[in-house]
Amino acid sequence: MTDKKGVLVVLSGPSGCGKDTLLSKLVQRNDDVKVSISMTTRSPRGQEIDGVDYYFVTAEYFERKIEGGEMLEYANYAGNYYGTPKAPVDEMLGRGISVILEIEVQGAEKIRKAYPDAVTVFLMPPSLASLEKRLRSRGTEDEETISHRLFIAEQEIRRAGEYDYVVVNDDLDEAVADFETVINAEKMRLTRNKNIISEVINNV
Amino acid sequence: MTDKKGVLVVLSGPSGCGKDTLLSKLVQRNDDVKVSISMTTRSPRGQEIDGVDYYFVTAEYFERKIEGGEMLEYANYAGNYYGTPKAPVDEMLGRGISVILEIEVQGAEKIRKAYPDAVTVFLMPPSLASLEKRLRSRGTEDEETISHRLFIAEQEIRRAGEYDYVVVNDDLDEAVADFETVINAEKMRLTRNKNIISEVINNV
Repeated sequence: MTDKKGVLVVLSGPSGCGKDTLLSKLVQRNDDVKVSISMTTRSPRGQEIDGVDYYFVTAEYFERKIEGGEMLEYANYAGNYYGTPKAPVDEMLGRGISVILEIEVQGAEKIRKAYPDAVTVFLMPPSLASLEKRLRSRGTEDEETISHRLFIAEQEIRRAGEYDYVVVNDDLDEAVADFETVINAEKMRLTRNKNIISEVINNV
Repeated sequence: MTDKKGVLVVLSGPSGCGKDTLLSKLVQRNDDVKVSISMTTRSPRGQEIDGVDYYFVTAEYFERKIEGGEMLEYANYAGNYYGTPKAPVDEMLGRGISVILEIEVQGAEKIRKAYPDAVTVFLMPPSLASLEKRLRSRGTEDEETISHRLFIAEQEIRRAGEYDYVVVNDDLDEAVADFETVINAEKMRLTRNKNIISEVINNV
């Protein structure tokens, strides 16, 4: 069939809703789906590897990328830049690979403006109560941090209406399958298959 | 999860591209998918059964339905009315059943206007040449009829760009699975899950 471009997918969802687990399973199961690697000016932590977890760069390098229009989106948190470099994303899409950008609600908005073709997916916990349970069961955060995360989570969930699709992460395997369903359906959009009409008419 | 309405799907595609075979397989495999039954004023042919193949009605009855705004779409061919009654469609959608309307390109346009939420799918033959082969292999039509059908098919294929999705009917089972993928993805649209945000926030 047509030589298809990959689908650019923005994934958002509150902290603790299982985005990373879902994405690692999704990528394992699909050769033509990759997660975009962010660029940051913060220092690597623990086991983090340059080019795998992040591209670790200097502030000067990052700012040159911004000035050159080479960042899809970026933000500054606590004095460090975080963002998505455009070139690797375009390169993968061009080779028919779908690319997932895991970014928060504000970043998602920027992507939607730059890539109207992008598909936005909100990963939803079954309930705020279940998210609270999950955060507590980690046992790594104090009461104040958990309260703050839940407050932020609720703000994010209230903005889910701005997304195209909602995937509920109740059962992990089901959520991965749902995510695959969204990507596969989007590949069948006429807007992504502009050549098909002339091909069907002219091919023998 | 949320009490979901079914998805209204418009299916079009040239004569001979396998719409009926695809739909009968789709309905067999999915309890929550039904094909809408058209209403017509023409007489039953051969084995056709009222309420299964069509609702066979009088012209007077059909015209009353039109005047009452009770038809989703209708057209007049060769002196007979054909159309889709609104009530059974709304009733099924309300019960969470997805409803497929098998209609031609002009009718599809009317549905899109009346139901902006409707999803439109174009069933595409792998090529016009393969469609010709399929029409010839039926052995039921003369050369002139086949030429005319192919001419009409090409006109229809040229309008496929107006549809949301394209499903290529190369392998029947794959085409059925693709169709299911589209319906399942559409069920995850935020626009069809308006209550989910408040449910997730408030449910325990």
